Amino acid sequence: MGVQEDVQKPLDRLSEALAAEMEAVNALIRARMASRHAPRIPEVTAHLVEAGGKRLRPMLTLAAARLAGYDGPYHVHLAATVEFIHTATLLHDDVVDESRQRRGRPTANLLWDNKSSVLVGDYLFARSFQLMVEPGNMRTLEILANASATIAEGEVLQLTAAQDLRTDEDVYLQVIRGKTAALFSAATEVGGVIAGAPEAQVQALHDYGDALGIAFQIVDDLLDYGGATQTIGKNVGDDFRERKLTLPVIKAVALADADERAFWVRTIEKGDQREGDLEHALQLLARHGAMQAAREDALDWAARARDALTPLPDHPIRDMLSDLADFVVSRVA
Amino acid sequence: MGVQEDVQKPLDRLSEALAAEMEAVNALIRARMASRHAPRIPEVTAHLVEAGGKRLRPMLTLAAARLAGYDGPYHVHLAATVEFIHTATLLHDDVVDESRQRRGRPTANLLWDNKSSVLVGDYLFARSFQLMVEPGNMRTLEILANASATIAEGEVLQLTAAQDLRTDEDVYLQVIRGKTAALFSAATEVGGVIAGAPEAQVQALHDYGDALGIAFQIVDDLLDYGGATQTIGKNVGDDFRERKLTLPVIKAVALADADERAFWVRTIEKGDQREGDLEHALQLLARHGAMQAAREDALDWAARARDALTPLPDHPIRDMLSDLADFVVSRVA
Repeated sequence: MGVQEDVQKPLDRLSEALAAEMEAVNALIRARMASRHAPRIPEVTAHLVEAGGKRLRPMLTLAAARLAGYDGPYHVHLAATVEFIHTATLLHDDVVDESRQRRGRPTANLLWDNKSSVLVGDYLFARSFQLMVEPGNMRTLEILANASATIAEGEVLQLTAAQDLRTDEDVYLQVIRGKTAALFSAATEVGGVIAGAPEAQVQALHDYGDALGIAFQIVDDLLDYGGATQTIGKNVGDDFRERKLTLPVIKAVALADADERAFWVRTIEKGDQREGDLEHALQLLARHGAMQAAREDALDWAARARDALTPLPDHPIRDMLSDLADFVVSRVA
Repeated sequence: MGVQEDVQKPLDRLSEALAAEMEAVNALIRARMASRHAPRIPEVTAHLVEAGGKRLRPMLTLAAARLAGYDGPYHVHLAATVEFIHTATLLHDDVVDESRQRRGRPTANLLWDNKSSVLVGDYLFARSFQLMVEPGNMRTLEILANASATIAEGEVLQLTAAQDLRTDEDVYLQVIRGKTAALFSAATEVGGVIAGAPEAQVQALHDYGDALGIAFQIVDDLLDYGGATQTIGKNVGDDFRERKLTLPVIKAVALADADERAFWVRTIEKGDQREGDLEHALQLLARHGAMQAAREDALDWAARARDALTPLPDHPIRDMLSDLADFVVSRVA
């Protein structure tokens, strides 16, 4: 999903608070990514799993379960499930996007081939379903199965919507709710459900994950255009080159005059991109305040995430989750 | 999986006996392949689902449930689950094999693109998991989740084993148990489980599906070399051209002299294929009786499938399943 996971301080504090359980999650992930018959599977998976993702999503499940007072063993299975779904999605995304780098390393589709990425991704999806069955809890099963369908639906929607200038902010929200927020909200919600938390708390955890995921993805899409400061870093412009319509461009297109519209039609819809086009795109984003407007949306979603936490018990983990929402948007603050 | 489903008579009799339930399965499939947000999904799925597959796998679930005396509604969900897993697998297989035709029509990866096939396949996998959760039966969930993992593992194993001349009959059996028989045996087993059949009957249904699936795939691999009669039809040689090591070639390689071995190394391992190579391969298969030996294996597995039915109640459906085992191998008899 092209998400940069350089969330630091509050996530580090969560990591510390949940260190023993996170170790159990990592052990379970290593055990379940094995394959008796097909050594290609652990090779490909290890390349991605051990590349040092921040394990943000499984951490959310552990945090939610702890916050809701859970003291059983199954939040570990649910957290590992969430990470497997995420990893499977990354493998398939890199095939779909023809990506060459992920977390600073060559992608699996480049090191092995598309076939391996597709089939090992399928294996991890299947493994995630085996894992989510183990707690024997029908409701967490439903939540995670529904999230998987929503993720895939969001990815397909993005395929058709991303290069279509008629795509508006509502469709954009649907896409990122699918491809990013659905797994965040499932991750937090299942933590509450497995803990047997009251309905209001389960809803609060879901809403927190949803808003956090949306903020997270808007920030990621902003950073792809250099963030609010529009510094052109080494990764700036990937979405533009891949003709992926994201929030800043959607906002600029909505305010475009005829010439500007022709520019977006040529570069995004038709994919006819020339020297200097990225710089011109950045000028148009600045001219219409599109970056600032998108940044305000992200801040708003972060505030919603914080507010969603209100019904939950007063607890150090709740404070860390609140800080995490601030931190996610601090990258563009 | 390149499986030709031209199984006729006994399957037609099963279709007739189970017509009302099969109609319910088809209605459920149509309802669940919809997508509120992404119209690409039903487009791609309809192309495949409505191309007229014989629905062999969901039929097995319905037949098993009927045979075990089930009168509830959930065999329909389980049957639709099985068909969704199968359809998702076909979409991904066609990407992996770079196929251009399936059931006599252009493949989805050709009509749309690989991206759509990968992501719509993921959507169908996720939908299959939603469906399999609905009956609320933990054991059918475990069986189907395990089958999904075994399928993916078999596909990955095939990726590495198919062009490796060290691949022996044991590895071949592992591959086809994964890519084909795992779904057959899960399809029959869940029918028995949902009906609450005694353990011996559940085991019998599993063993029947396993043996039937193995026979089915061996026959398919034989037909790819023209069947026992070695008539070169329009689809003969696909596996050879794709350098996919299947049972007839494995048997011929095991008996190869130095020259013959060099031929297999060049054509299968190195993929250096020239005019006349397929004809030469067919001569080598004939010289070592490889086709006849593989055909006998298929007949043996069909006999095992029939024998497995013994613990099951005396019932017209049982006779049809027995005939189905014969029919599957009649294509090479």
